[in-house]
Amino acid sequence: MDEIRRLFDTAPFIRDLGMALVSIAPGRSETKLLLAERHLQQDGVVHAGVLATVADHTAGTAGASQIEAGAYVLTAEFKINLLRAARGECLHCVGTVLKPGRRLIVAESEVFDGSPDHSRLVAKAMVTLAVMQTRSK
Amino acid sequence: MDEIRRLFDTAPFIRDLGMALVSIAPGRSETKLLLAERHLQQDGVVHAGVLATVADHTAGTAGASQIEAGAYVLTAEFKINLLRAARGECLHCVGTVLKPGRRLIVAESEVFDGSPDHSRLVAKAMVTLAVMQTRSK
Amino acid sequence: MDEIRRLFDTAPFIRDLGMALVSIAPGRSETKLLLAERHLQQDGVVHAGVLATVADHTAGTAGASQIEAGAYVLTAEFKINLLRAARGECLHCVGTVLKPGRRLIVAESEVFDGSPDHSRLVAKAMVTLAVMQTRSK
Amino acid sequence: MDEIRRLFDTAPFIRDLGMALVSIAPGRSETKLLLAERHLQQDGVVHAGVLATVADHTAGTAGASQIEAGAYVLTAEFKINLLRAARGECLHCVGTVLKPGRRLIVAESEVFDGSPDHSRLVAKAMVTLAVMQTRSK
Repeated sequence: MDEIRRLFDTAPFIRDLGMALVSIAPGRSETKLLLAERHLQQDGVVHAGVLATVADHTAGTAGASQIEAGAYVLTAEFKINLLRAARGECLHCVGTVLKPGRRLIVAESEVFDGSPDHSRLVAKAMVTLAVMQTRSK
Repeated sequence: MDEIRRLFDTAPFIRDLGMALVSIAPGRSETKLLLAERHLQQDGVVHAGVLATVADHTAGTAGASQIEAGAYVLTAEFKINLLRAARGECLHCVGTVLKPGRRLIVAESEVFDGSPDHSRLVAKAMVTLAVMQTRSK
Repeated sequence: MDEIRRLFDTAPFIRDLGMALVSIAPGRSETKLLLAERHLQQDGVVHAGVLATVADHTAGTAGASQIEAGAYVLTAEFKINLLRAARGECLHCVGTVLKPGRRLIVAESEVFDGSPDHSRLVAKAMVTLAVMQTRSK
Repeated sequence: MDEIRRLFDTAPFIRDLGMALVSIAPGRSETKLLLAERHLQQDGVVHAGVLATVADHTAGTAGASQIEAGAYVLTAEFKINLLRAARGECLHCVGTVLKPGRRLIVAESEVFDGSPDHSRLVAKAMVTLAVMQTRSK
């Protein structure tokens, strides 16, 4: 888990976007993103690409919690439904593994918007992760 | 078409990412993105969230070319398969409408990576767009 | 709800497959299918097409519980992950509406296999339903 | 290819549905289904589950054309967009491999309805196939 924490935002795109890891446990991860103007569509709601990135990376982190040392996960595909226009101070995302596996892991992500007092489910994704082995030397 | 050109990168997230519209025609759009370090995963390949954003926004632009004045499109859902690790100087994306409609438009996007000399299909998405009417005053 | 019960298996394909409605409540439906040899793949597990049909029709039934009289739902698209090889006496499926709407409804379906004593999640689907109005004369 | 031909409709569900293999070549397959009343929804159009089964099995057949002897493919997940109400005498489906691979194959399927004279694209699917090894004794 410490390794996952350490690696979470070493991806430049994740650091640039501003995503942060809230918690990690076997098969489950939580992340958040403080929203800024640059995350938005022209109409002031969060861009689908931001929601997709958050959903994908959170699912990948949940999947990474259930693989052996030396392995890593790559997203093979995902599907996301955008349920409501997302706005507010921040996004909060929960990723959950539906099916662990040696070769494929399936996870889902739920993205919530709003403030701590008023949170709504704004997007839901299903993500298929391929488990890769780090090449030995 | 001029209106679509004008609106293309008024979305702050698209301008921030660096996407540019290459061409637009009825039911078809082409975009590109010059890759920088901030678009990458920790392992140096393009982050799935970048590919998803490019695929979604390009499909939406293709869909926007087939609606009436006063209407706009919102992504209802999309699915993307990441076919190969994406790298190189830039991404190039072609969005094509599979089925126009008054309420729903279905489009697909193909994302290519690499340089002008050596280009490969790295991701493919199917996108469902909802056609919305701008509220009259 | 009585109308949904009455219509459930008037679709010839559903009656032919053998699906039955177990329960219906606002935003939720449960169905089952007694498995026979004709539902299988060559290797003795349930064919993906059977799982997809069950997931789709159960989600549609859940969606139909949240529309007005005179309207009906059509599947616009769905995505299904096949998590485990499905076998056993029967399939059991729960459909849940994630987001109701006047034009689009998003629902998910979980399909379980096995016997009453031993049940496992074998597939999960996300389904986008279009709400249609019956044409008045 | 002969082996794929031989195995095509050994799946009881495919034989029961009535699907037939039209042609097979490396990375490409064509199938057809003569429509009967039992393939329909209550409103007389083809049930989404039939279209999904045809799309899935045709993509799997295209994928099976690009694996080694002793291996087989299983559908990991698929997504299908239903573009138009499908009707007419028969369905015709073309499956194409987008990306071959040793562990995962991605294919797409296009389903057409109608008669030989008048055919329309009614559904399109993207399918992720897992390549499995037959266990040696």
